[in-house]
Formats: sequence, structure tokens, C-alpha cells
Amino acid sequence: MDTATRPHCSIARSLEVLGERWTFLILRDAVAGSTRFSQFRANLKIAPDVLSDRLATLVEFGVMGKVPYQEPGSRVRFAYRLTPAGTDLLVVLSALQQWGDDHLPRPEGPSVLRRVKSSGRAARVGFIDDEGHPVESRDVAWRWAHLDGSGHGDTLRGRHGG
Amino acid sequence: MDTATRPHCSIARSLEVLGERWTFLILRDAVAGSTRFSQFRANLKIAPDVLSDRLATLVEFGVMGKVPYQEPGSRVRFAYRLTPAGTDLLVVLSALQQWGDDHLPRPEGPSVLRRVKSSGRAARVGFIDDEGHPVESRDVAWRWAHLDGSGHGDTLRGRHGG
Repeated sequence: MDTATRPHCSIARSLEVLGERWTFLILRDAVAGSTRFSQFRANLKIAPDVLSDRLATLVEFGVMGKVPYQEPGSRVRFAYRLTPAGTDLLVVLSALQQWGDDHLPRPEGPSVLRRVKSSGRAARVGFIDDEGHPVESRDVAWRWAHLDGSGHGDTLRGRHGG
Repeated sequence: MDTATRPHCSIARSLEVLGERWTFLILRDAVAGSTRFSQFRANLKIAPDVLSDRLATLVEFGVMGKVPYQEPGSRVRFAYRLTPAGTDLLVVLSALQQWGDDHLPRPEGPSVLRRVKSSGRAARVGFIDDEGHPVESRDVAWRWAHLDGSGHGDTLRGRHGG
């Protein structure tokens, strides 16, 4: 993706890499430990050409790294692992997970729980201010950045706007 | 979506509603204040049949509500607004925004800033434990829930697993 042609909006930029259902599910499987083409394919029941295409995009944009491995008697294959940029998607995936559990719940409850490794406590995704204090979602607004020196810094309208 | 056929994974459930690039961009525009079909269409340059389909899905799953309005001399039209479930997606959209700005940055910087309305401080998306303390992403793991009484509660493997 040429920098010059990237959309202004960072959500749109993210979705140029991630904006596809399979991509999020591949990333979910990567967080859960899958590294091999055959593992992703078996877990996701995804067509090989689609999987291959999505992995290539993730490697191209530095979300996953591709490293060769070879088992005795087999040809060289590749393992796919999350890069630091990919690891940073944990918060995006966890936010999707949390929303699904909050608004599309299963009677059995969540299939995956988020836990703090050092304390064992439950963890949620939320907003945190620059002093490290949690902030209610309804207290957060999106504001246009001063991009062009025009002083166009209005709060976005709408529910979260003002 | 029939409850019985919903996927176990809450990410997969979320993506049955949201798993499409246009859907996230429609939601972004809704957060920014768009309510009318014509506004979404003009902002997103999206084909009307695709927009209509995506809005119908969002209404079906309770993410947006559809309310009639009428301007003098015009026929009745519908305005689309985020429901509380839709409003809860602010954290998902903001997490995508933040990731795009962190890993696919523009030279001009972020196009949208997240601000705390009551304090004016910058806000990020992150993990918060059940005592209200922010937690580093690398200190968070996904664990399988005890879904079936089998005691299958292993930490997921992988980078965030152990």
C-alpha cells in the first residue's frame, strides 16, 4: 500500500489489511497457537487459495512473519507467527470477543476468558486516559485532528460527539 | 441468527454481524454523526444495494435502529442510529483506529483523536482488570472457559498463551 494512497482514516487503513472476516479468524487462531498452513486450514475450514491469499496480505503488511521449517522426509514448509504489530491486535480481537459476549451471548457463556497472567484477574477492554485511569466509553469522543492547519478541530457529531 | 447455530467463538459471532469492511466503515460514519442513507452513501461511495444490505443486517441484529422521518414535500424516509449495542462498538472501532495509527501511520499523524469529554485528556484502548487497573497487553492471556464441565481450562498456547 503506497503511503500516498492510504486513506486518511486509520480505521479504513486498518481494514485494508484486516477488513475481512477470515483475516480476523486467522489472527484469532494465531493467538491461540496455530502456526502452520495445515492448522489454520483445518481449524477454519477455509479454502486453501483464500487462506494463502489472506496470509500473504498479513505477511506483506508485517502482521505475521513467515519462517521456513522442515520435518524429516518432508519438503521445506513455512510457519506463520504474529509479529509485534500482530501481537498488538490482541486488543482488537479481544474487543470483538467482548462485544460478542456482551451482545450476542451464548447460553453457555463465553468460550474464552481474558485473564491477567500475573494476577489471574479477569480483564476487559476499555478506554484508559493518558494518566492511566480507566474512562467510561460514554465519556470518550472522537475529535478531528488539526491536519491541515485550518483549525478544523470540531468534535465529531453523533452519540459520542459532544 | 439462530442461537443454536451460533459459533462458539465470540469473535466469530461478532463477525457474523460485523465481519465485513463496509460494515465497520458504516459504523464509523454513524459514530461521526451520519444517520441518512444518502449521507452514508455519499461519504463511503458505496453501492446502494450493498449499503442497504449492510444496514439491514445491522438493524436485524440490533446494532442500529431505523426510525422514519419526513421532510416537507418528500416521502417518508428512514434514519439509522446506533443502539446501545452499537454504541458499545466504540471501543472496537477505536481499537482498530489506534492500531492503524500505531502500525500503518500517515506522515500527517492520526486523522481522529480520542479525547475524554470531561477532562480533555487523550484516551487509548487497552486492557483493564476487574479492580479497574490498566494491564499491559502482554500480561493478558486467553483461556478456554469451562464450557462442558470437562475441566478443560487450559491457557491457549502461543504468544499470549502462557
